[in-house]
Amino acid sequence: MSSIWGNNIKLSLFGESHGAAIGINIDGIPPGTILDLENIKLEMKRRAPGTNNLTTSRVEKDEFQILSGYFNGKTTGTPLCMIMKNTNTRSRDYDKTKDLMRPGHADFTGIKRYLGHNDYRGGGHFSGRMTAPICFAGAIAKQILKSKNIIVGSHIKSIGDVEDSSFDKTEIAVSTLEDLKYKKTPTIREEKALQMEELILKIKNDNDSIGGVVELAVVNIDSGIGSPFFDSIESKISQIIFSIPGVKGIEFGQGFDISKMKGSQANDELYIKDEKIKSYTNNNGGVLGGISNGMPIVFKVALKPTPSIGKKQRTIDIKEKENTEIEIVGRHDPCIVIRALPVLEAATALAILDLVLEMNI
Amino acid sequence: MSSIWGNNIKLSLFGESHGAAIGINIDGIPPGTILDLENIKLEMKRRAPGTNNLTTSRVEKDEFQILSGYFNGKTTGTPLCMIMKNTNTRSRDYDKTKDLMRPGHADFTGIKRYLGHNDYRGGGHFSGRMTAPICFAGAIAKQILKSKNIIVGSHIKSIGDVEDSSFDKTEIAVSTLEDLKYKKTPTIREEKALQMEELILKIKNDNDSIGGVVELAVVNIDSGIGSPFFDSIESKISQIIFSIPGVKGIEFGQGFDISKMKGSQANDELYIKDEKIKSYTNNNGGVLGGISNGMPIVFKVALKPTPSIGKKQRTIDIKEKENTEIEIVGRHDPCIVIRALPVLEAATALAILDLVLEMNI
Amino acid sequence: MSSIWGNNIKLSLFGESHGAAIGINIDGIPPGTILDLENIKLEMKRRAPGTNNLTTSRVEKDEFQILSGYFNGKTTGTPLCMIMKNTNTRSRDYDKTKDLMRPGHADFTGIKRYLGHNDYRGGGHFSGRMTAPICFAGAIAKQILKSKNIIVGSHIKSIGDVEDSSFDKTEIAVSTLEDLKYKKTPTIREEKALQMEELILKIKNDNDSIGGVVELAVVNIDSGIGSPFFDSIESKISQIIFSIPGVKGIEFGQGFDISKMKGSQANDELYIKDEKIKSYTNNNGGVLGGISNGMPIVFKVALKPTPSIGKKQRTIDIKEKENTEIEIVGRHDPCIVIRALPVLEAATALAILDLVLEMNI
Amino acid sequence: MSSIWGNNIKLSLFGESHGAAIGINIDGIPPGTILDLENIKLEMKRRAPGTNNLTTSRVEKDEFQILSGYFNGKTTGTPLCMIMKNTNTRSRDYDKTKDLMRPGHADFTGIKRYLGHNDYRGGGHFSGRMTAPICFAGAIAKQILKSKNIIVGSHIKSIGDVEDSSFDKTEIAVSTLEDLKYKKTPTIREEKALQMEELILKIKNDNDSIGGVVELAVVNIDSGIGSPFFDSIESKISQIIFSIPGVKGIEFGQGFDISKMKGSQANDELYIKDEKIKSYTNNNGGVLGGISNGMPIVFKVALKPTPSIGKKQRTIDIKEKENTEIEIVGRHDPCIVIRALPVLEAATALAILDLVLEMNI
Repeated sequence: MSSIWGNNIKLSLFGESHGAAIGINIDGIPPGTILDLENIKLEMKRRAPGTNNLTTSRVEKDEFQILSGYFNGKTTGTPLCMIMKNTNTRSRDYDKTKDLMRPGHADFTGIKRYLGHNDYRGGGHFSGRMTAPICFAGAIAKQILKSKNIIVGSHIKSIGDVEDSSFDKTEIAVSTLEDLKYKKTPTIREEKALQMEELILKIKNDNDSIGGVVELAVVNIDSGIGSPFFDSIESKISQIIFSIPGVKGIEFGQGFDISKMKGSQANDELYIKDEKIKSYTNNNGGVLGGISNGMPIVFKVALKPTPSIGKKQRTIDIKEKENTEIEIVGRHDPCIVIRALPVLEAATALAILDLVLEMNI
Repeated sequence: MSSIWGNNIKLSLFGESHGAAIGINIDGIPPGTILDLENIKLEMKRRAPGTNNLTTSRVEKDEFQILSGYFNGKTTGTPLCMIMKNTNTRSRDYDKTKDLMRPGHADFTGIKRYLGHNDYRGGGHFSGRMTAPICFAGAIAKQILKSKNIIVGSHIKSIGDVEDSSFDKTEIAVSTLEDLKYKKTPTIREEKALQMEELILKIKNDNDSIGGVVELAVVNIDSGIGSPFFDSIESKISQIIFSIPGVKGIEFGQGFDISKMKGSQANDELYIKDEKIKSYTNNNGGVLGGISNGMPIVFKVALKPTPSIGKKQRTIDIKEKENTEIEIVGRHDPCIVIRALPVLEAATALAILDLVLEMNI
Repeated sequence: MSSIWGNNIKLSLFGESHGAAIGINIDGIPPGTILDLENIKLEMKRRAPGTNNLTTSRVEKDEFQILSGYFNGKTTGTPLCMIMKNTNTRSRDYDKTKDLMRPGHADFTGIKRYLGHNDYRGGGHFSGRMTAPICFAGAIAKQILKSKNIIVGSHIKSIGDVEDSSFDKTEIAVSTLEDLKYKKTPTIREEKALQMEELILKIKNDNDSIGGVVELAVVNIDSGIGSPFFDSIESKISQIIFSIPGVKGIEFGQGFDISKMKGSQANDELYIKDEKIKSYTNNNGGVLGGISNGMPIVFKVALKPTPSIGKKQRTIDIKEKENTEIEIVGRHDPCIVIRALPVLEAATALAILDLVLEMNI
Repeated sequence: MSSIWGNNIKLSLFGESHGAAIGINIDGIPPGTILDLENIKLEMKRRAPGTNNLTTSRVEKDEFQILSGYFNGKTTGTPLCMIMKNTNTRSRDYDKTKDLMRPGHADFTGIKRYLGHNDYRGGGHFSGRMTAPICFAGAIAKQILKSKNIIVGSHIKSIGDVEDSSFDKTEIAVSTLEDLKYKKTPTIREEKALQMEELILKIKNDNDSIGGVVELAVVNIDSGIGSPFFDSIESKISQIIFSIPGVKGIEFGQGFDISKMKGSQANDELYIKDEKIKSYTNNNGGVLGGISNGMPIVFKVALKPTPSIGKKQRTIDIKEKENTEIEIVGRHDPCIVIRALPVLEAATALAILDLVLEMNI
């Protein structure tokens, strides 16, 4: 089933973008956790469209309401359910074209999966809006991890072929991650942000879209988290990362580049200094045998270009069973990378927290 | 926990390479399935070391014994447990160096995870030998999928920087996959196999190791398999793929390349012909919204170079808490790609079967 | 974790009786199911207080709102979330006594479990109101089972020592179960209903409470449902039945009486007639080896007397850590049996549906 | 699926009584646990037939072999798999009668569940022998619980209508439970043991069988263990208890008797003494709202009479589809209560351990 996730912190997701509300039920938050609601709102704002001219002008109401599990400013330890009412919907944007299968979207696959009964309006259960509740849950996860000194952060590695630097895998300062968090276009090198923004506007004016890569890091995590095989850190992270719409690839440490390296180059040799065990390099991205070794967990995620573009595309009419064309109107993101970045951080935080709670840390 | 996997077909893995036996318990195989034991043995032989001069000369006893769930040539439908006794072990290879943490291995992380109590001999629970039971289970999964006409196959995309062609993502003949299956070095272009073999031998003589990339495909799968979010096909596959030791990256369809494409290039436009719905391209690798669309599911997996190399490496003595060096002797694979390939196929087959069984197909 | 249940139909429960709302997220309902909303409301009305003078005069707002998974009158197949807003709450009923641990309630255990952070008002997450969402989900489960001709029903076996007849375990007509459904006090023998009602009123006037036993049946279920060991029908049913507040015992078939029988008396001898396989008796309650045999599944559930009584009781003040007394005011049920009965039916329907969906029937 | 159980300590069961071996894979045992193998053998011996004249003379080989997860006398923390080879089998006892459905057994339901493919010899996967691995796992669970001062124990409450006293639910000394453990017929009142033994022998000579009730207790458990709803202590315990063949009922505290009590009688009033919070009575069996309150957890389990009796019984031939008779020969237990008792303790220990590990105690 698609809506339940987690062993120690459990998520249950629900909603369609044009239904009454979307939301998430979270079980396993330790009782007595003081939720930083302002921080949660900030995290969700990073994701919300309509906050700058690079993203869609469609303004989503991202106000959330906590229905349960929260009393006198603290979590009760019972399931915490949050909902977000859907208000800014324009159903007529979608009604006329419901039988036209938009290329790159889940229109066709959704019909097949749900035997034609899914809510097609605005992407329904497949809508990017569904990432908002994940952002909410991830904000809580980040807060709890932070109380254990574990920080999750990221930057845009590339948009199209504009490439930023990479993180120094052997050492990433918390301040580096914190500084990146509220930049409009978070990059390590400032000038790359401008280049990326220019490229996006250019693509936008061209009625097209572009993809990108996000690089994420988890720092200050103890060694010994995770397990070999099915609960490996890479398994855990990749499973939830691929749950996020638009993700098409993930690689840890040197990732695909490590496949071209020799063992003598790739192996992370160890050393001990001031009682701390580290490695000279971190080509393995902080994970060996599925378990953390104390070095930063570093990985990259590939995001595809937004499928909704203003150009004419060939497709089918699924009702008439014939070939046809479609031209998508409406307000769409030329690039989902900036908006997806906080969602990927949220997903990562949830994966790490689930493993950390297992180890009773 | 690391040893249990699956919703409809459930796996429970156990064993250390130098313990009495390793094995796997499989629950959910439909009752009355006639197991093709010869085919299972062939699949496991693809994985077994000592079968050619490119892999290690260490000959593992890969004979397996089925303890339960199998009666009169058919599965009973009750849990089927298979064990493989460990016989070809040379404990003294490992005893002297148990406090020296081998770079790139899970020696250090295993000690941290299991508080120093794990069986360190031969990699213990982290040994590559643990992939043999997964191969066994995957062979059964492949057999069941084949009865539904679904075929899983693969080829070596690259070893080091020797690159083979890629699959034609829009159409892969079953015969193509079948022909690849029992080649010593399975590639699409014959001459690339020779180049890869030469490179591996050269690396081997150099006491080093090299990584590579495997490209896998699932063909003839119906549309509508999988679910959005946590049970997406990419989530399901990546979670089990990353359970296999040595995997450091996975990408679906155009993967990381799709991040550099524009929407107008990346979108897979649809068409209908002879009542069948297809797409002109398959940059999304057969999956949209986490659900199959009927096109081949195609993805690549990056494998790191074998950590065990014959060169001197810097490391630590974890008992003495001091910096030192290690030189690994013994018989090791210069490249795990050829041996890992059937394991990756097996893992893929299990993931697909679990989703197919959910859809009651 | 306490809030997630199920393998094929998954429930995620949330809410406190004095929080914003309570509700449930249901995943796994087959797409395209036409929900009979009127029937769902009737089922929930059977549970709702304030409907007769035997139960509490506190009128709960049992209006529900479906937030997702429901479009154009049918389920979409995506998660269906329902919420019920909490409106009829009198917080001052509970505020003054929050440190007085009510005997028989979960006040003390709730504080221990949630480290003092749970919402204590009105029982919070332990409130009987939390059974309303289970009733809702069970009504949907019943509807789906009914489409497969499987019917779940029940009657009150006893209130205090007023005993009704038992079901004829070998044969229970669907009409028998249907007729019982909307009786105010559902019994097989009419005069027993009157005796029970009299007893309850007498107890009520005495500011006390009384317990009872409900007998449930599942008819027209195929043989071969369930599995041995951990997913046995009795395991499945008892696990969800004991989730319902107030339950203290369950017995299948002859239950505790079977322990006094000899094998020659207890064994259900088989016979075949008109191609149908049945047994002369049904002391095993329709389940052998954890699997259904086609005979009615019959079991009894023991419910304790409502803990909230108007009499003075000895207890502790958990803040002052001293012995004291408590006298509970407010509006309370003298007997929860009538109200719990539809909830037990709902729970049973969910358990049976989860197993039936597994068998792909 | 039937073979996997648990959240924090995970069990995976396999085997048929006449297959190569039966066994269990256990994941989640804390690394570094020193297993008391002698104690484990003693626990399993309590269960083994052929140890006294009251049980069957069939001597099972209960020798077990640990295949993994155990190194240098301690658990590694990786999955621990144990197998027991099946040696003392007389296949011809069962072959001739495989189409005759033994009343009270799972012959018919097993055929239906497994579509005729299950191993029918000796009960196959339904054999009482399958409880031996559960005993093994439970012995380990008991050992871990004991290190936390939590003790699980039991006595025979009744065989037929010979009734022993009950535990004093408010206080059960550890010594009481320890003394009961190795009695041939564990009862509180010595003379009742003799009466029970006489009754069993009488029944045995009569070629019949008899059922009984076991009363179990968990002492020294902290308050706050368990959760409301689906993970309640009663849900957890009953689910695994009903996994044990032969169980037909379970009741906590006063169980079915509580249904006849008034609230003023049933409620367990609280008091505090020497900083410890207790209740004057324990009618609720130590559980309120699904959570432990620190009082002993006390419950009774009803076991049916052994289905295999030496008398002629009416049944069907499932192959010929006709009514017939069966007379079971061979060596069978007249009463499974004594043998089932340690298995019920084992199951209880596993349930409690799973919940205790969740609370990180």
